[in-house]
Amino acid sequence: MPVGTQGTVKTVPQDTLEALGAEIILGNTYHLYLRPGHEAIRRMGGLHKFISWPHALLTDSGGFQVFSLNELRKVTDDGVRFRSHLDGSSHFFTPEHSIDVQIALGADICMAFDECTEYPADRSRAEESLRLTMAWARRSLDHFRAHRHEVPWSDPKGCGMQCFGIVQGGMYTDLRRQCAERLVEMNFDGYAIGGLSVGEPRDLTLEMIAETLPLLPKDKPRYVMGVGYPDEIEQYARMGVDMMDCVLPTRAARHGLLFTSQGRLNIKNKQYAEDQGPPDPACDCMVCRRYSRAYLRHLMQAGEALSGTLNSIHNLAFYLGIMQRVRDSLAPATGNQEAGSLKLEARS
Amino acid sequence: MPVGTQGTVKTVPQDTLEALGAEIILGNTYHLYLRPGHEAIRRMGGLHKFISWPHALLTDSGGFQVFSLNELRKVTDDGVRFRSHLDGSSHFFTPEHSIDVQIALGADICMAFDECTEYPADRSRAEESLRLTMAWARRSLDHFRAHRHEVPWSDPKGCGMQCFGIVQGGMYTDLRRQCAERLVEMNFDGYAIGGLSVGEPRDLTLEMIAETLPLLPKDKPRYVMGVGYPDEIEQYARMGVDMMDCVLPTRAARHGLLFTSQGRLNIKNKQYAEDQGPPDPACDCMVCRRYSRAYLRHLMQAGEALSGTLNSIHNLAFYLGIMQRVRDSLAPATGNQEAGSLKLEARS
Repeated sequence: MPVGTQGTVKTVPQDTLEALGAEIILGNTYHLYLRPGHEAIRRMGGLHKFISWPHALLTDSGGFQVFSLNELRKVTDDGVRFRSHLDGSSHFFTPEHSIDVQIALGADICMAFDECTEYPADRSRAEESLRLTMAWARRSLDHFRAHRHEVPWSDPKGCGMQCFGIVQGGMYTDLRRQCAERLVEMNFDGYAIGGLSVGEPRDLTLEMIAETLPLLPKDKPRYVMGVGYPDEIEQYARMGVDMMDCVLPTRAARHGLLFTSQGRLNIKNKQYAEDQGPPDPACDCMVCRRYSRAYLRHLMQAGEALSGTLNSIHNLAFYLGIMQRVRDSLAPATGNQEAGSLKLEARS
Repeated sequence: MPVGTQGTVKTVPQDTLEALGAEIILGNTYHLYLRPGHEAIRRMGGLHKFISWPHALLTDSGGFQVFSLNELRKVTDDGVRFRSHLDGSSHFFTPEHSIDVQIALGADICMAFDECTEYPADRSRAEESLRLTMAWARRSLDHFRAHRHEVPWSDPKGCGMQCFGIVQGGMYTDLRRQCAERLVEMNFDGYAIGGLSVGEPRDLTLEMIAETLPLLPKDKPRYVMGVGYPDEIEQYARMGVDMMDCVLPTRAARHGLLFTSQGRLNIKNKQYAEDQGPPDPACDCMVCRRYSRAYLRHLMQAGEALSGTLNSIHNLAFYLGIMQRVRDSLAPATGNQEAGSLKLEARS
């Protein structure tokens, strides 16, 4: 899922995302809450309409961003007080408030408010953090069920909106298990594995996913948050992960890092100054069909905004292409063309 | 003609320019000479191929940019010595060198090297400046005719490439006349009116165009450089001007200024925060069809790069729409669907 932090997948127009075959994008609750504000978005009919994205949308709970504001937050059992990175104003997020904001945004999938346990965290710290996450999951889900009908459009039952729980537990497999079992009892619409890709070694990421995934119901979407590199997402998808999100393809693109079938390519390198080949000879995306490495390097060197756009389009095409190939390879075994793919119908 | 200073019409992908109906764009010789370098572009087959623009291209002579480097240049009869704004390195441009660089870039139209007379300039200064421009026009054309075959592709006669002369003369109509007559004697492929939109009042711009235009042959393209606002370009086109270029639609766009059928609109204004109408209700462009003023304002407020892209697309659509309407309105009178339009076939 391409990440659209502030209601835009950075540098890429929505029609291009459609042409790339993106079926779902993310919005960040924290950012949209601060600007333009969830009530403004609600008044305008919700995030789909506001950003003109008539396809699936997922909003995070705001938790991850808030917990990234190291110096600007204070956590209690009730919630988190934090200061805006924009103007220093004080805000208080509870599980209930996070869900309220997400309902106002009206994404197809909202996420329970959790605490993303930092890495490293010792066992007592991870246990304490998990206690918060599990209490907040309960409160998030209860509030979601009571208020899901308050979406920004006419939908008395609010049936279309889903709420996912997030498994935390640091790097302790028994805590992960405890959390997963508790969340599954609560019967969320889907389950995420959070608190990964926070600085831990990759084999630990893999171990946590491998241990946690089997505990989550196969008939509901299973989502690993915040990953990853191309080989990672393919590996996790083949393990049974249905959804992943990461800023990496677009953020790396803006810094000149292209993901290709031949590995990573830093387009700023002088060796590409007169390289008339496409960014990735094996790629059929609109950028690789039209532009050369030399041109992309020139745009980067010249500080031209088109650089970010073209690099992002290629990287997204590369990521989406990986997932498409995984789906294609799964299809014969299951006899289901949609295997491994979450299909959501967005409201209009 | 949208301006593509560094080989890109800022923030807008080439396929979008095609979808907008842009038939010709500009490249800036000064910028491309410095980065990535004209010899690199020549080795890669020319500017069309380098930037993937298989349509018409025009390059300026570099003169205007060099003359904008107030503190960094020294003019002699032979040419101009200047320092790069990028790294302070010293360079010397003569009419011959400007033409050599433009031939290496291989645009469809190259411009004679001229001195853009500043405003205000007293009569003796304007006369002296004009003397340079006329001498340099002669040298530019002679050099062009001798070397036009040295294009970056196989074209023994170099027939496709054209060279335009530039009428200067400050704000003195008799100097403009003198220059125009001299240039027409030299028999350029087309004629530009330069040295306008340099700070003079608009009625003076209009007077200079009105006085100069009739002196230039109607059967060759007549080009007014560096203009202008939407009402200006319509006015000049209706007077018989065939070509104009300006950074205004794209530069203004990046600063949040939209040109619309209802006048100028500063999309940053708070009044648009929840305005769900299209940027211009009378516009059928891909931006006005899809996005709201509220969304464009949000992108601007949030500092998102997509803001520049979408605003630029609309402004270019608005400008190109004006010219299309002028062409359409001329067509019945002349019985020629291409009236007022310069059609160029780009080499591939």
